[in-house]
Amino acid sequence: MIFRQLFDKESSTYSYLIGDEATRDAVLVDPVLPHLERDLKLLSELELRLIHVLETHVHADHVTGAGKLREVTGCTGIVPHGANVGCADRFVRDGDTVQCGAVAITAIATPGHTDSHMAYRVGADRLLSGDALFIRGCGRTDFQNGDAGRLHDSVTQRLFTLPDDTLVFPAHDYRGMTVTTIGEEKRCNPRFIGRTREQFIEFMAKLNLPMPQKIMEALPANEQCGQVLTGAGAAPNDEKAIAPAQRPPL
Amino acid sequence: MIFRQLFDKESSTYSYLIGDEATRDAVLVDPVLPHLERDLKLLSELELRLIHVLETHVHADHVTGAGKLREVTGCTGIVPHGANVGCADRFVRDGDTVQCGAVAITAIATPGHTDSHMAYRVGADRLLSGDALFIRGCGRTDFQNGDAGRLHDSVTQRLFTLPDDTLVFPAHDYRGMTVTTIGEEKRCNPRFIGRTREQFIEFMAKLNLPMPQKIMEALPANEQCGQVLTGAGAAPNDEKAIAPAQRPPL
Repeated sequence: MIFRQLFDKESSTYSYLIGDEATRDAVLVDPVLPHLERDLKLLSELELRLIHVLETHVHADHVTGAGKLREVTGCTGIVPHGANVGCADRFVRDGDTVQCGAVAITAIATPGHTDSHMAYRVGADRLLSGDALFIRGCGRTDFQNGDAGRLHDSVTQRLFTLPDDTLVFPAHDYRGMTVTTIGEEKRCNPRFIGRTREQFIEFMAKLNLPMPQKIMEALPANEQCGQVLTGAGAAPNDEKAIAPAQRPPL
Repeated sequence: MIFRQLFDKESSTYSYLIGDEATRDAVLVDPVLPHLERDLKLLSELELRLIHVLETHVHADHVTGAGKLREVTGCTGIVPHGANVGCADRFVRDGDTVQCGAVAITAIATPGHTDSHMAYRVGADRLLSGDALFIRGCGRTDFQNGDAGRLHDSVTQRLFTLPDDTLVFPAHDYRGMTVTTIGEEKRCNPRFIGRTREQFIEFMAKLNLPMPQKIMEALPANEQCGQVLTGAGAAPNDEKAIAPAQRPPL
């Protein structure tokens, strides 16, 4: 398997490129729009054909590259079942598998950060944990129908039950960490160790975080597969903005 | 082997933590001073004992954490032979091996970015390429006795002769890439493909890059194992600045 972690400095987002060495099929998970050219170039250099873009959830802090990548490569856009993304080609449910050549990518329903969040197991020993589980942290639960109790269940009952040596690749890190393991998070994640479900809910309720800077732009754009909207919420000077009439059909 | 890539967003620097699972010995390569606490915490969480800090070269864009880490952990500080770092505990020459439990870290003299730069082979299949070879790029050669011809020789004769599937981890990336391979760089690195040694020298001479922002602070500090100097070149409000009398002896 080809596996590449890619970083967006502005939003501290990790995207992941998964490729099959024999078939040259590739899947991009959580691509970030401003890196479209970097990601297309990498696919071409590695002689990979993008077949799917896969989202862990509808992002509030950056605009997805899914729509543009689909336009350019003809790949399909896949999002979690229940996500408010009418333009997606496919919705995955818990346990569904997305195939990338011989590499199986299996969805694990992990709601809590949003109400339709999926983590993805890649092959036998890797987990893309999205915004459910971070390295010594977890995603916030105070918008997009977030629910701290459900996140606690997702992490402790779905992710912490995977083998301890599973490599965990999160959708964000803000301190320059790149990878962890399930065993390490079970031992060291300060959000979960020494806290009951109730204490976790109480803790999350008191975080009082500011809204993500780009939420007004990112959420409506990502509900349109990352096509940046004109009008309210759109970046006013974005040359790539697409007028409603030009948007792809639902 | 435990292997962790760590990122400093400000200078786009990668540090590397290497650990032996059996002996729990660890080596940190190119640590960045402001991440001292993050790195110490990670060592403690992974139950690793830091035995060496290893530098690929004397950095001009960030201050090394070597001195402080040595102070706190009692590790030794290792730098390339010829580096102007009087306070180092050991100088490695081409072919020397630094042992981290069962993991052998072997120095490969790769001058050109600076005159005493080392890349390090870690185990059989990984290379820490420092500032000699970047992902689709290479380090600049216009200060610290840099020499484009020597860099061309280092990359093409020492690094490009390693097995194609060697994973290459650079000391910097400015576009969010994390890893490459020798084969990929031989095929895709625009600094080297389609350019003779002479054309490479000519190209590097015309880059005309601005000086690194922190060079006046970083170079003298790194020649003192990262002890930030007071007086000229020091960050005036750095509470951790150490007065000359308190500096460790050479």
